[in-house]
Parts: sequence; structure tokens; C-alpha cells
Amino acid sequence: MPGIKLTYFDGKGRAEAIRYILSYMGKEFEDVRLTRDQWPSIKSTTPYGKVPIIEIDGKVFHQTAAICRYLAVEAGLSGGTPLENIEIDQIVESFEDFVKEFSKIRTADPAEQEKVKQTFITETVPFYFGKFEHGIKNGGYLANGKLSWADLYVVALCEMLAGFLGKADLFEHFPHMKALAEKVRSNSGIKEWIKKRPVTSF
Amino acid sequence: MPGIKLTYFDGKGRAEAIRYILSYMGKEFEDVRLTRDQWPSIKSTTPYGKVPIIEIDGKVFHQTAAICRYLAVEAGLSGGTPLENIEIDQIVESFEDFVKEFSKIRTADPAEQEKVKQTFITETVPFYFGKFEHGIKNGGYLANGKLSWADLYVVALCEMLAGFLGKADLFEHFPHMKALAEKVRSNSGIKEWIKKRPVTSF
Repeated sequence: MPGIKLTYFDGKGRAEAIRYILSYMGKEFEDVRLTRDQWPSIKSTTPYGKVPIIEIDGKVFHQTAAICRYLAVEAGLSGGTPLENIEIDQIVESFEDFVKEFSKIRTADPAEQEKVKQTFITETVPFYFGKFEHGIKNGGYLANGKLSWADLYVVALCEMLAGFLGKADLFEHFPHMKALAEKVRSNSGIKEWIKKRPVTSF
Repeated sequence: MPGIKLTYFDGKGRAEAIRYILSYMGKEFEDVRLTRDQWPSIKSTTPYGKVPIIEIDGKVFHQTAAICRYLAVEAGLSGGTPLENIEIDQIVESFEDFVKEFSKIRTADPAEQEKVKQTFITETVPFYFGKFEHGIKNGGYLANGKLSWADLYVVALCEMLAGFLGKADLFEHFPHMKALAEKVRSNSGIKEWIKKRPVTSF
């Protein structure tokens, strides 16, 4: 089956990073959004019981960062050298550490949840965004002073986090992150995607 | 400062994957092992408050997988094409999901810890290792039918897991994983490293 089919839930979530990159590339893709009812029967057909998965010309791939890194080569969003690639990968993996901290809110004891969330907002966000701000300030982008898939990855996944945290603007106190997000979203393919995508909270 | 300096705690831990790759490459490296007393003062000097970090010719890098992916290019342990690289990355990122499940043992309520550990051993290990077994059975290695940094990564980090779980042989019921580990450890550089490295429980 030629073509691209992305499968995820009906939300931005982790899949949004892939959707950003595909849109940046101007690629058409089938955007399958599973309902809760559909998920149990689909789950066992995925490589590791997880989504997003993407089918490209009949071959299935999984793992968000792996998929993005792969698409980035064709998109021209990879580094030009191993040294540029490690700079990108360091950002993406540090951002994943940040997402791991975020996940602790959802797995916390319900009685503790609000406290864990506040710590995340007042300590974890400034710690990671502070590091990112510093990098963007020096080069305009998260890595290597030029646009890469790390920028699309971070901006797209921050949409999910903002949704879950109920914050309209996660970058309120982080002007360089905000400018970066605007730069990423000003790309014509991504701008068009954001305009046409289904409205979801996160 | 020319040369390679790896900084971590006095254990195999996440750093062992990097030590395996450096040893495979026959690279000499300074193997700095921090004591608990040293850590607080070092922590704030690292890029994101975490180790391992590696200094290569005076430049500091962080994030285990990013470092391994970078070293793998010079080591000849990367894929030869983007398609081969996504196969490698899918394994490494799925293995990281597995490690994330493992981490839940350590963060569990002390009263629940033994139960969480047993679920990990009886359900999570067979799920992930079952997938890996299937892949190795078909090609002798975790990805692309040839040795890659994914093999060194998984085998090295399983040493840490086995240590924490108090299991001498994590691969007891997984003959293909066991054969892979033996193949990885039969590399002359890695064999030499294992012989000379400090003895630590994990």
C-alpha cells in the first residue's frame, strides 16, 4: 500500500511531532484517530502495544523520536554531521526527560497530584525551559543555530503538555521559546496543518 | 584537553553502554567514578544535572543514547541507511520504555515494591525480551541482521538491570538474547574491558 498512514488517538499527543514534520515536508498522510473503543483490538496489532505508529509504503514503524529522526533526513531537518546530530539528539532526549517528569503528575497518588503538578510548573518547567532559552538565545534555534527536527519536536510536544496542564501559553515567561514556536508555526506546511487539524484539548 | 573523559557513578549503570562502545572501538578513556560525596558539587556543573557525561577533546556531551549514537558512527556500529538507522533507533527507544517500566520498581511505594518487581519480572521482561528474541532469531542481531550499537546498548544496560534485580542471569529463559550477549562480549575490546573494569553490583 503506497502512501503514509499515521495511527494515534484523537489528540495531538506524541503524534503531533510526526504530523508537524510531515506537514513541513508537504506530505499528504492519512491521519487515523482511534477511539477508546477501537484501541484494545488495535493494540495487539502494533509492534509494542503502543501508538503512534506510521505505515510508509506498507512498512510499519513505531517510536516517536525514531520516526521523527528518520523523516528528518528526507525533510532536511537532520544535522549535516555527526556532531550536529548529537546536538539535536541531546535536546530531544533532554526534552524526553522533561516529559518523563511531566508523566509523574498523571501517575501520582490522586491526593498528591495537585502538589506534583505545581512543583512541575514552578520548578521543572523553569529548569528545562531555562536551558532551552539559553540555547535559543545564542543561535535562534535549539541546536546548531539552524532549524532542525528538535525544534519541531519540542514545539509540537509542548502543545500536548500545555493542553494537559490547562495553560494556554506554556511559553509565557520564556520569550525565546515563544519566538521559536512562532518561527516553527510560520512554516507554510505547518501553518496549513494547524489550520485544518481537528480541534482537541491536548 | 585532548582525550576522552567519561564521568558517572561507581557502577555500570547507564554509562556501561558508552564504555562498551568505547572499548569496542579500542579507545582509551578516563573512567571517572564519582562518590556520593562528590556528586552534589559536580551536579550543577553538568549540562542538565545528570550523568553520564563525556568530554571528548574538551567538548562535553550528555544523554546516553545520544552519546552512543554519535560514537557509533565512528565505530561503524550505525546503520548504513536511514532505514537501517530507524530499525536501530526503534530497538533502543523500545528498550528505554522497558527501562522506564523498571524504574517504577524503584519509585514505587515501599509496601508495593516487591509486588511491582514481581510484575516486572513475570510480565514486563517476557513481553520485551519476547519481542527482542523474535528479532534476534530472524537475523542474529537486534536490527538489520548485523551488529549495531543497539546490541551493545541493550546488552550493557541489561547488566545494570540484572544487578538491581539480583538476577545473575537475566537471559535465563531467552536463549537468543543470551547468545547475543555472548557474541557482544566476545569482541576483543569489550572482553578486555569486562576483565579489567572495577567489580560493582550494578
